[in-house]
Amino acid sequence: MNKSVGIPKGMRDFSPQELQRRREIISVIQQAFESFGFQPIETPSMETTETLLGKYGEEGDRLIFKILNSGDFMKAVDENDCLQKDAARIAPKITEKALRYDLTVPFARYVVQHRNEINLPFKRYQIQPVWRADRPQKGRYREFYQCDADVVGSDALWSEVEFIQLYDTVFSKLNFPEVSIKINHRKILSGLAEAFEISNRIIDFTVSLDKLDKIGKTGVIDELKKRNFPKVAIDKINDLLHVDFTDNQSVIEYLKEIFANNKIGQKGVEELEFILDKTTSLGLSISALNLDLTLARGINYYTGTIIEVLPPKSVELGSIGGGGRYDDLTGI
Amino acid sequence: MNKSVGIPKGMRDFSPQELQRRREIISVIQQAFESFGFQPIETPSMETTETLLGKYGEEGDRLIFKILNSGDFMKAVDENDCLQKDAARIAPKITEKALRYDLTVPFARYVVQHRNEINLPFKRYQIQPVWRADRPQKGRYREFYQCDADVVGSDALWSEVEFIQLYDTVFSKLNFPEVSIKINHRKILSGLAEAFEISNRIIDFTVSLDKLDKIGKTGVIDELKKRNFPKVAIDKINDLLHVDFTDNQSVIEYLKEIFANNKIGQKGVEELEFILDKTTSLGLSISALNLDLTLARGINYYTGTIIEVLPPKSVELGSIGGGGRYDDLTGI
Repeated sequence: MNKSVGIPKGMRDFSPQELQRRREIISVIQQAFESFGFQPIETPSMETTETLLGKYGEEGDRLIFKILNSGDFMKAVDENDCLQKDAARIAPKITEKALRYDLTVPFARYVVQHRNEINLPFKRYQIQPVWRADRPQKGRYREFYQCDADVVGSDALWSEVEFIQLYDTVFSKLNFPEVSIKINHRKILSGLAEAFEISNRIIDFTVSLDKLDKIGKTGVIDELKKRNFPKVAIDKINDLLHVDFTDNQSVIEYLKEIFANNKIGQKGVEELEFILDKTTSLGLSISALNLDLTLARGINYYTGTIIEVLPPKSVELGSIGGGGRYDDLTGI
Repeated sequence: MNKSVGIPKGMRDFSPQELQRRREIISVIQQAFESFGFQPIETPSMETTETLLGKYGEEGDRLIFKILNSGDFMKAVDENDCLQKDAARIAPKITEKALRYDLTVPFARYVVQHRNEINLPFKRYQIQPVWRADRPQKGRYREFYQCDADVVGSDALWSEVEFIQLYDTVFSKLNFPEVSIKINHRKILSGLAEAFEISNRIIDFTVSLDKLDKIGKTGVIDELKKRNFPKVAIDKINDLLHVDFTDNQSVIEYLKEIFANNKIGQKGVEELEFILDKTTSLGLSISALNLDLTLARGINYYTGTIIEVLPPKSVELGSIGGGGRYDDLTGI
């Protein structure tokens, strides 16, 4: 073992000191989850490839660590004259299971499988490692923990208010000086797409919009041009990007004007107003809640609110939390 | 997902109730480990196949879950005219990493890799899942937790006494009514092999002996016959199996007689006597410490004491703990 001792790339050992720090963080999150009434579950590290594949897009599928069936590689080879032309047919035979890529899809599988044992609404949390066969960059790993809290079987807007309180509690207890909780709503994005007459291209539209932080306003516009969006729509989106909102109220007023004759947009505004009102009444200890029309992460499966939590600029981290509402778990 | 929802065989979901119970057990073990001065570490779920393969015997190698390199299966297929005749050469190319099979080999790798960061003696504990591609039988799983405490860099016999105290503490705090801690010594097994003039076949001898619980005295003798051991040796082993030891002292006296001219055997007896004496002085709260000449588990790598912990007969479990001393970690 002396010769070439090491671990696979993107993996980490934890020394007693490092482990102690991680345990403290996890303990804070766990206590916050439990104080909000979430119950813990754990799912196995492996799921069937059938459960995992096709849920995270093509890119996601590639990043899933597949497990080789024991001994089946040799068997597959033996049973086939020549694998080359049969590769596509053989590949699934040698991998029937894979390491989980996140905690959302395993949870959806759990809910369906145990539907007769759980009472709705089911508030669960799950703190477990996930694995991604990513090309690991600085500060990113191929094995890392996710801490998820979700509610199933509740369509109450109060749940959304509760999640915002939960984010605020967790990062406050973790001694973050301040965090920004960005919020948007799928129905507002749908409303905008309708207003811009690009409803049929909502995914492309929102995926481009979501890159604003990374590529800037001109970057977004350039991408929309490259994707051949109609000039009229691009001009309207450009106008939107250049509105200087002073606060959440100014965004709401802007939207109400745009959505004067737009049912779906109105519904989104109404729900966000409820959440903003209740959150303001209850108060947040360290967080600012910011309505952000360009936030679209997870648009593929979120059907209601979309939330992302960002640390203060002084902390060199990207997103430190997020979530959203999806009404149809079984579709995941 | 509705159609065929399920998890890979040998895997489990944990409901809030089940998880709560497991957490309580792990918390007791963790507190006991820490009260004895062990520090926690964690190693990644995956190790390189180079680290893992060849450490657990041929059977063990087969039971290791190998991870498919991302995309490399197809690449390997593309780069080779026909895989069939090249299977043995291709197989390592598509699996460079695998899930850990136990916590001992990853710990040995950790010690070697971080030798400049750790102070000896290093008392570490590790509570993490391990994976085995076993054909899962009733009550056995392909993913399960191991709880390991080890000392590296100490050859003091006092460590052995401490481990026995630790087992006693853990199972007492877990409210086991009583447990049997079996102890043996590699040097005693070597001494016996020498006395029976089968030193060159010590592994075969002890592997057969270790099956006594499962196959009985005649089973062991039959196996030795099948393995073509000399009749003289088999007769002596048969005699040993039929001695009716009343207590540890009677075993010690029996061994002293056999080892009258046997240096290695004498050394083993001396060390066990020390451990038995000190343990008796300190006292055990729920455990009985039993010298068992047929205990040989892990003989391949243990160089000193060998320990196995068994629950009371009323509890339907096999071994609930065990360990031993190995002097050369780098050989693992």
